[in-house]
Amino acid sequence: MPIDLRLDASEVPLLTDLYELTVAAAFFAHGLNDAGSFELGIRRLPPGRGYMIAAGVERLIEALEEYRFDEKAIAHLRSLDLFTPEFLDYLASFRFSGAVRALPEGTIFFAGQPVVEIHAPLIEAQLIETIALNQVGFASMAATKAARCVGVAAGRRLIDFGPRRAQGADATLITARSSYIAGFHGTANVLAGMRYGIPVFGTMSHSFIMAHETERKAFEDFIDNFPKLSTLLVDTYDTVRGVAIASEIGARMRARGLKLQAIRLDSGDLPDLSRKARRLLDQANLKDTAIFASGNLDEYKIAELVDSSAPIDAFGIGTSLAVSDDAPAGDFTYKLVEYKGTGRLKTSAGKLSTPGRKQIFRGFNSSGIAMGDLIGLLDESASTVTREFKSPPAKVTPLLETMMEVGRRIMPRPELATIRTNLASGLAALDPRIKMLRRPAEYSARQTAALGALVISEKLKAENRQA
Amino acid sequence: MPIDLRLDASEVPLLTDLYELTVAAAFFAHGLNDAGSFELGIRRLPPGRGYMIAAGVERLIEALEEYRFDEKAIAHLRSLDLFTPEFLDYLASFRFSGAVRALPEGTIFFAGQPVVEIHAPLIEAQLIETIALNQVGFASMAATKAARCVGVAAGRRLIDFGPRRAQGADATLITARSSYIAGFHGTANVLAGMRYGIPVFGTMSHSFIMAHETERKAFEDFIDNFPKLSTLLVDTYDTVRGVAIASEIGARMRARGLKLQAIRLDSGDLPDLSRKARRLLDQANLKDTAIFASGNLDEYKIAELVDSSAPIDAFGIGTSLAVSDDAPAGDFTYKLVEYKGTGRLKTSAGKLSTPGRKQIFRGFNSSGIAMGDLIGLLDESASTVTREFKSPPAKVTPLLETMMEVGRRIMPRPELATIRTNLASGLAALDPRIKMLRRPAEYSARQTAALGALVISEKLKAENRQA
Repeated sequence: MPIDLRLDASEVPLLTDLYELTVAAAFFAHGLNDAGSFELGIRRLPPGRGYMIAAGVERLIEALEEYRFDEKAIAHLRSLDLFTPEFLDYLASFRFSGAVRALPEGTIFFAGQPVVEIHAPLIEAQLIETIALNQVGFASMAATKAARCVGVAAGRRLIDFGPRRAQGADATLITARSSYIAGFHGTANVLAGMRYGIPVFGTMSHSFIMAHETERKAFEDFIDNFPKLSTLLVDTYDTVRGVAIASEIGARMRARGLKLQAIRLDSGDLPDLSRKARRLLDQANLKDTAIFASGNLDEYKIAELVDSSAPIDAFGIGTSLAVSDDAPAGDFTYKLVEYKGTGRLKTSAGKLSTPGRKQIFRGFNSSGIAMGDLIGLLDESASTVTREFKSPPAKVTPLLETMMEVGRRIMPRPELATIRTNLASGLAALDPRIKMLRRPAEYSARQTAALGALVISEKLKAENRQA
Repeated sequence: MPIDLRLDASEVPLLTDLYELTVAAAFFAHGLNDAGSFELGIRRLPPGRGYMIAAGVERLIEALEEYRFDEKAIAHLRSLDLFTPEFLDYLASFRFSGAVRALPEGTIFFAGQPVVEIHAPLIEAQLIETIALNQVGFASMAATKAARCVGVAAGRRLIDFGPRRAQGADATLITARSSYIAGFHGTANVLAGMRYGIPVFGTMSHSFIMAHETERKAFEDFIDNFPKLSTLLVDTYDTVRGVAIASEIGARMRARGLKLQAIRLDSGDLPDLSRKARRLLDQANLKDTAIFASGNLDEYKIAELVDSSAPIDAFGIGTSLAVSDDAPAGDFTYKLVEYKGTGRLKTSAGKLSTPGRKQIFRGFNSSGIAMGDLIGLLDESASTVTREFKSPPAKVTPLLETMMEVGRRIMPRPELATIRTNLASGLAALDPRIKMLRRPAEYSARQTAALGALVISEKLKAENRQA
């Protein structure tokens, strides 16, 4: 029996706002289907964020490759009594035939920059708006949140503990994947482990302790089964007493040639409890037993714990990562920037958009640190824009890459490990002031002279569109 | 080709934290599989919330009915090299055989109350923890957010515009369903319309205007195709000028016996623009053309607009609903409350849980207003607890209902329309002070004497579990 929690590939085209379909139908009826370019980006950085990390692009490309309205979808659309038989026939044979230029996943980006550009017959580019925003938006928010955590963890291991608090099923997979590319050590999510090959970790539940007549017996039972997964949860009752019991068990394990991997603190005053726990473990000669902490942690609390030298070796991050709690959504937009070869833009108050197909040029100094970005036009190149940087860059790299052409992927799907490495290099090349958790410095991202000129000329034209 | 965005029903059991499986395996190995009861509820109300709305229960029940580890799932678990062949065999033949008592969807609940109780062999109840929290948690957060919007909209229509900003695919369906049961008029989400029969609405995109040489031509083209969906988006360029053009078109439609349904404002100073728009429309004799507003609206802004008598007839709510932006996650827990017939609880600092299988008794006064709740034990009844209310209630209703027994649904799946009606009645019976957007009054929810006594006696016993 089909269950509501499932999502079939053939349902993805219906996971859309109705207006994408009505607008597409009106384009179809009036023959407006020349090449158009849409640009997906973030209008402004979310509060407290100095940078963003691109993610979700691979999933979008995959969805575009397999974008099909099946018979059931067409039957449903027919039942709405809104669409002509000709348009429904068009949808029934729909294949995405456009081009995608995008930032490789893991690339750092800033406000006003194209993350994904769809260049396709207008109707195709229109239809995929909702799913593009839905997928790239949250994946990028989650990757950014995770990168902030990794940035302050000073090498301590971070594990995604988000599935229970995520907003639905799909979000758990997105969070696991985004956090892994951002440098998390692994996830608790078994399905994400299967899908992506991400290392999967788990400790034990309070219920396991509570179901036993004594905490000690619960610890012993668990170790009996999982000597290699021996992370004991010590805060069901009195935490310090729990650590003492775990230490006794650890000492006995050691006598049998086994190792107590870790104890886990999930509540209470973590700096204080972790110090007491460390002392008890050390006294029991368990210096290599790690301390794992969880319980409403986020980048701010990790930073505090690290700064206070709390002896914690690894963190489980749940809610704050799972929903990107201090910035659960970003102001992502998907804007028409060119149609029939001419620039298009919105001019309404506060929502001025930037016309034209673009490239982002990132300048690096001789130490490899990013000095700033120039957002230019597609026909500009690293060599032509170099002189527009405030001081001469040692290297200029164009960031957007062509990923699909005529509906086919032209770049092999990257390994997660590669994305992860690229992301780490990108962050290493970013000035630490941009990476500060609070009140980060503003990264320099300006338009080239050519783009600036296009904005002015197209803005004048746009005003004439209300003749 | 399978795409990452899909979710197969057979993958649902793997959408779990690893520890559910390791803990279950340890229970299995040690023969701990007597009947246990777990309780899903919220530890504290999210900031600013005076009440919560239960949702997601039906989806959970459906998932439990179809919970199967298929061959691929078992093969993956085997590959982790953590589980015994006996435990994998147990999983391969796993069927949920337990009972579910829960609040019918749409029921109002408060902190510390059971929303769902799973009473099942311990291993079964353990395994479903992650998916239960994931599904009931966000669905309830979204229903609550939506109810707050409906509560201040004073009868104006609200439409879910969330899909582009939701955290992944599944969240879009949850939001559409939860907001509809909370009184939204419909959703933009086509797939949610197909799945749930929710009315689907759409207007037009800025890209539609921008792709045309003039705004006027865009309006004319759209109306030509969708005379009954004639909501014109007027803020692509100068908004007031856009309204004037829309009014001219509306006047010509009227001359042809058609009606301009609405204009849509998506940016700018909505009180000011809506008044100017109303005046222009009225001057064009388009008094029945509605004004639709969208653009970063939430319950606070709706309340302001309604209070200021801005002439807005309907609102599209996107981001704030889609991610429940001011409270993106709730502090939901799933706690073992009874095992082998005896109460279980956590006693760690700040996380004291309440043992025992429970019932919630809601007292109503003679005007039908909810006076307060008593949380009692399963064997208490409305008549036995009546005298424990501070003043005598006219009626006492037990809230938790048995929905599944021995793994089978025993109540027919309710229609969304029924849930919607029950939810509206529940909210109508709630003191307005509890429903205030900011600093709501605290609803009275106490324990019965019998439950209080159980807490004390079990707490003493729990302290002995660290012998």
